[in-house]
Amino acid sequence: MRLETAHLAQQVIARCKTLAAFSEDSGSTRRTFLSQPMRDVHRAFAEWLQPLRASARIDAAGNLRALYSAGESDAPRLLIGSHLDTVPNAGAYDGILGVALAVALLEALDGRRFPYAIEIVGFSEEEGVRFGTPFIGSRALVGRVNDTVLNLQDANGISVRKAIEDFGLNPAELDTARVHDDVRGYLEFHIEQGPVLETLHLPLAAVEAIAGQSRLEIVFVGRANHAGTTPMGLRFDAVTAAAEWITTVENAAKAIPGLVATVGSVQTKPGATNVIASETRLTLDVRHRDDHIRNQAVEDMVRNAGQIAQRRGLSVRSHESMNQPAVPMDPFLVSQVEAAIGKTGCQPHRMASGAGHDAMILAEKIPSAMIFLRTPGGVSHDPAESVSVDDVALAIECGMHLLDQLASAATFQTRTLRA
Amino acid sequence: MRLETAHLAQQVIARCKTLAAFSEDSGSTRRTFLSQPMRDVHRAFAEWLQPLRASARIDAAGNLRALYSAGESDAPRLLIGSHLDTVPNAGAYDGILGVALAVALLEALDGRRFPYAIEIVGFSEEEGVRFGTPFIGSRALVGRVNDTVLNLQDANGISVRKAIEDFGLNPAELDTARVHDDVRGYLEFHIEQGPVLETLHLPLAAVEAIAGQSRLEIVFVGRANHAGTTPMGLRFDAVTAAAEWITTVENAAKAIPGLVATVGSVQTKPGATNVIASETRLTLDVRHRDDHIRNQAVEDMVRNAGQIAQRRGLSVRSHESMNQPAVPMDPFLVSQVEAAIGKTGCQPHRMASGAGHDAMILAEKIPSAMIFLRTPGGVSHDPAESVSVDDVALAIECGMHLLDQLASAATFQTRTLRA
Repeated sequence: MRLETAHLAQQVIARCKTLAAFSEDSGSTRRTFLSQPMRDVHRAFAEWLQPLRASARIDAAGNLRALYSAGESDAPRLLIGSHLDTVPNAGAYDGILGVALAVALLEALDGRRFPYAIEIVGFSEEEGVRFGTPFIGSRALVGRVNDTVLNLQDANGISVRKAIEDFGLNPAELDTARVHDDVRGYLEFHIEQGPVLETLHLPLAAVEAIAGQSRLEIVFVGRANHAGTTPMGLRFDAVTAAAEWITTVENAAKAIPGLVATVGSVQTKPGATNVIASETRLTLDVRHRDDHIRNQAVEDMVRNAGQIAQRRGLSVRSHESMNQPAVPMDPFLVSQVEAAIGKTGCQPHRMASGAGHDAMILAEKIPSAMIFLRTPGGVSHDPAESVSVDDVALAIECGMHLLDQLASAATFQTRTLRA
Repeated sequence: MRLETAHLAQQVIARCKTLAAFSEDSGSTRRTFLSQPMRDVHRAFAEWLQPLRASARIDAAGNLRALYSAGESDAPRLLIGSHLDTVPNAGAYDGILGVALAVALLEALDGRRFPYAIEIVGFSEEEGVRFGTPFIGSRALVGRVNDTVLNLQDANGISVRKAIEDFGLNPAELDTARVHDDVRGYLEFHIEQGPVLETLHLPLAAVEAIAGQSRLEIVFVGRANHAGTTPMGLRFDAVTAAAEWITTVENAAKAIPGLVATVGSVQTKPGATNVIASETRLTLDVRHRDDHIRNQAVEDMVRNAGQIAQRRGLSVRSHESMNQPAVPMDPFLVSQVEAAIGKTGCQPHRMASGAGHDAMILAEKIPSAMIFLRTPGGVSHDPAESVSVDDVALAIECGMHLLDQLASAATFQTRTLRA
């Protein structure tokens, strides 16, 4: 590893830690859409970008945008970025690491120019904390911040529109945040937020798809009865029915490679020690990169719930509140990422992302790809979130290879924005 | 069935319905310890008892007491009763049916006297609603309303002592509520509050024991992780561990005759759709008439939880908050009840009570027995609670046989109060 890269990696981590102190809460990191500490983040990035002659601006959706021009005029453009906002009690790397890494890549270029311009994007909103809806920043780039989004209100009754105005921006100029047909691709470095790479002892992965996601509510309805006077054989117990079903969900998910299924919330009614439960309300979250496999699995799980309920003399109802299709990353860019990882000396690994990311939104219009960095302990959305200097250095090396590859790839230069 | 008995049974049911209207809540029945509507209940019973020359008094614990004297002086005494208080949104029969039935027995005697006096007792408190502790009424009869009980406070900060005073009674006179050594036995008619007799197509049962009860809290502790990014094989899911355990608890209980085990409450943390649960908190209620069988079953269930947790890489902790021994009813009285049921033409059936009753408290000092009446649908603690006229008539017949049997049983006359 070059000394230069190691130094840049250390600087990336130091910068992330500095930025984590810009928070709405004292003692922990919380930085929601267009909150005051976001100004400090913008200022810090502007300062780091200034010597690179990539002057930062804030678009009408509050996204940080900085253009590092191409070697020639009328050149196409590559976006590199991630998000600047955080969840409450956040770590220092989720999102913002990808923006700091993009800056490090420009620094590593040492003034070198490519036949394409590089635009760094720091998205203003990805986590959905303030307005209960995620991806406001990236949606602005694809023209999807409509009146419905603008009228959403936060806990204080402030609308997205008003928040934009209060930050000194003009919602009427949102259209100017949109990407144009000079944009050839979007790259996002992000921590994995899971244990897969650590388990495989690999630092980096090429993300080939964002998994599709189903969310359901399942309610088993039995009959409340006295826990002391009702023999086991005469019960219609909503807890034991639900327990049996949860074990079948777990077994089904284990049997299908790449499928994850989670019952995260269980609520019982009446919920008393001495009363057999009349109702158990469960959430189900199912994800897979293949929509057909996911939908089939959900269908089987729901049918299974019905069979368990029927056999026990209960009823069950289910409601699907979300069915978000998988988003494949751009095959050309994914193969380029894979090749670049190989050039760092690491074994290339392809995987799906189980979490949603800005790349999922940009992929609607722009060929997109992501590079995952190993996440120690899989810990994320927590102050203990971390990333190793070595892995960040490898990510910078991978990024440099990637930029070089794209510079010489005719395919990349001529690709156009999706309809 | 004699016309007279059928008429009395109809009257018992009509009286229970009348009394159900004496409530703290409008539109539903709720009558807690020494609440205002309890005065209306006392007044109604006093009116029905007056022609029987069994004048009613209220003891210092708020219990209704009415003595129907024996044919001779210095005779022993038999108590017959149940409780007058209710849960919120109660039915019309739980408890108070036993008191109304006792009055009907005196009416059926038509002035006839026995070689023992009959004291009707309507306990002021059994359900534990107002002060969170049950059996205040029956505890007064065995001298167990101590300062700890008197200092308990209700939701409005009123103590038991103050509640007694506010009702116009004198807590200093509590000792006068105690039973003396002239009391030879206690009989309690009560609805079964379960589905057993209905399932067996039997109207009545002799209760031979009140089941012992264990209450535990079980907490599985795993690790919170992202529901999308954590593969099934790398999870420490507190929900699936708990679900596996609940199914083993159900199977274990089904395998042991007479055992009931209930997980009535399940709480998950953090309880979000997209987060694998780090903690599941469960309640466990286990009952059996045999304390050894119950304690062994609980021990097995707790060990099983440990094994499931260990295999899955989780931890589990358990806390036993209650271990109440079983209370056997008096063998002589139980056999007398059984014989009396047989004399009505019904098949005698013995069973354990899974719920606690005043008889459990009185049994500390007085030979006690209970007679269960079939409960349609096993429904209790609900406005839909009911009892059939025919079953009440059979209970009156059974009671009459029982009183006759005891009158000629030398054993009963000479038994003395327990130490």
